Amino acid sequence: MKNEALFRYLLRLGDDSLILGQRLAEWCGHGPILEEDIAMTNISLDLIGQAMNILDYAGVIEDKGRDCDKLGLLRLEKEYTNVLLVEQLNGDFGDTLMRQFLFDAFRKPLYERLVHSTDKQLAAIADKSLKETRYHLKHSSEWVIRLGDGTEESHSRIQNSLDNLWRYADELFYSDAVDSELTASGILPDLSGIRAEWDSTINVVFQQATLEIPANNWKFGGGRLGRHSEYFGHLLSELQYMQRAYPNMKW
Amino acid sequence: MKNEALFRYLLRLGDDSLILGQRLAEWCGHGPILEEDIAMTNISLDLIGQAMNILDYAGVIEDKGRDCDKLGLLRLEKEYTNVLLVEQLNGDFGDTLMRQFLFDAFRKPLYERLVHSTDKQLAAIADKSLKETRYHLKHSSEWVIRLGDGTEESHSRIQNSLDNLWRYADELFYSDAVDSELTASGILPDLSGIRAEWDSTINVVFQQATLEIPANNWKFGGGRLGRHSEYFGHLLSELQYMQRAYPNMKW
Repeated sequence: MKNEALFRYLLRLGDDSLILGQRLAEWCGHGPILEEDIAMTNISLDLIGQAMNILDYAGVIEDKGRDCDKLGLLRLEKEYTNVLLVEQLNGDFGDTLMRQFLFDAFRKPLYERLVHSTDKQLAAIADKSLKETRYHLKHSSEWVIRLGDGTEESHSRIQNSLDNLWRYADELFYSDAVDSELTASGILPDLSGIRAEWDSTINVVFQQATLEIPANNWKFGGGRLGRHSEYFGHLLSELQYMQRAYPNMKW
Repeated sequence: MKNEALFRYLLRLGDDSLILGQRLAEWCGHGPILEEDIAMTNISLDLIGQAMNILDYAGVIEDKGRDCDKLGLLRLEKEYTNVLLVEQLNGDFGDTLMRQFLFDAFRKPLYERLVHSTDKQLAAIADKSLKETRYHLKHSSEWVIRLGDGTEESHSRIQNSLDNLWRYADELFYSDAVDSELTASGILPDLSGIRAEWDSTINVVFQQATLEIPANNWKFGGGRLGRHSEYFGHLLSELQYMQRAYPNMKW
């Protein structure tokens, strides 16, 4: 293992992309309109592409011969360290877009900082991913506004999405020794401004969308430490099926 | 291989039980009332128990060292030969009970004949399974009658279940060289009366339930030859996950 903190950080980053990409892929062929079916599938492919780059690099850091297929598709449930937000069920179109918006609003300022990492490979991955993420955030914000400031029904449904997903938002900002060690060694640039930027983004969008942040302060977490929600096992059994049924398969 | 026709017949019999048992297991914890939650879970366990006995015996006939875990949980999609009926989605409670009724009304007269097989092991499995199947049929018939002859909504919903599932019923009576070879060798007793008995059972029940058999004559098949519906891959990825993630695991 070349750098355990970096390996664990890359798994967290890669797992967030992989699991959200897998969830979004479930929409393929089921979108409410063709344009959005294609959009969600493209975003899914972007996220899975990011996951492949990140997990391949994690494999290099780990130095045990595991590539993105092995790391992405052959770990056990407790070894995945994505935030719980990204594994939540798709629900309706509004639920999916709200989940995406809360995530994109975090990912954009994160990647904007990671492009300045002293680790050249991580900086390059962030740079490539940032372009995609800017588009994702634009797409998800526009839909949150359109549905929130839409009909009575669309408003009440996406307000309900926000009410249900809000408890998972805080975990996006989880940090522990992994982060502090990488900050100390200079691999991670100063990430302290991300929360304020996220707050600002969501406040602006929710104001236009006439949505209200829930008053309760429930916070669910555990994903970063490998403790997942009930839905995760089902997601994993689909995600891993091909690689487990046909070991070492390549596309 | 000691007897290929018998091996293939046992796979068909065992796969029907296994796949329907897996589908029913999805209800566990989600039944509309506690009594039915427990009933459906018990029926699921009966079916999975039957599948274990049948597939273990299939493994003996195959003579390659595969037991019920290997045969039940490690084959590829096209190697499963259950009828399409049993892999259909649970839908609502009425859909599930209608699927079950169409199946039980076939399984009971089948087992009643298989107890006379000259193959002692097959006859013993049929004898044990028959007791369970009589109860299953009683349970599913009563519910079909109760829902069909119930409220306007329950009637129209379970009529709809019948309309959707009817196209899969015919495949229960599929037969080919596997059956004719086993009949010729005396392992299978005369099964020719099953269809008439099934017709009689469903007509009596549907009359009490005030349900009508759809006028269209659509027939879907292919399951016996390993061609499955879209739902099957998803079912299989859940069914096989533990055995594939932890190879050779035993409970």
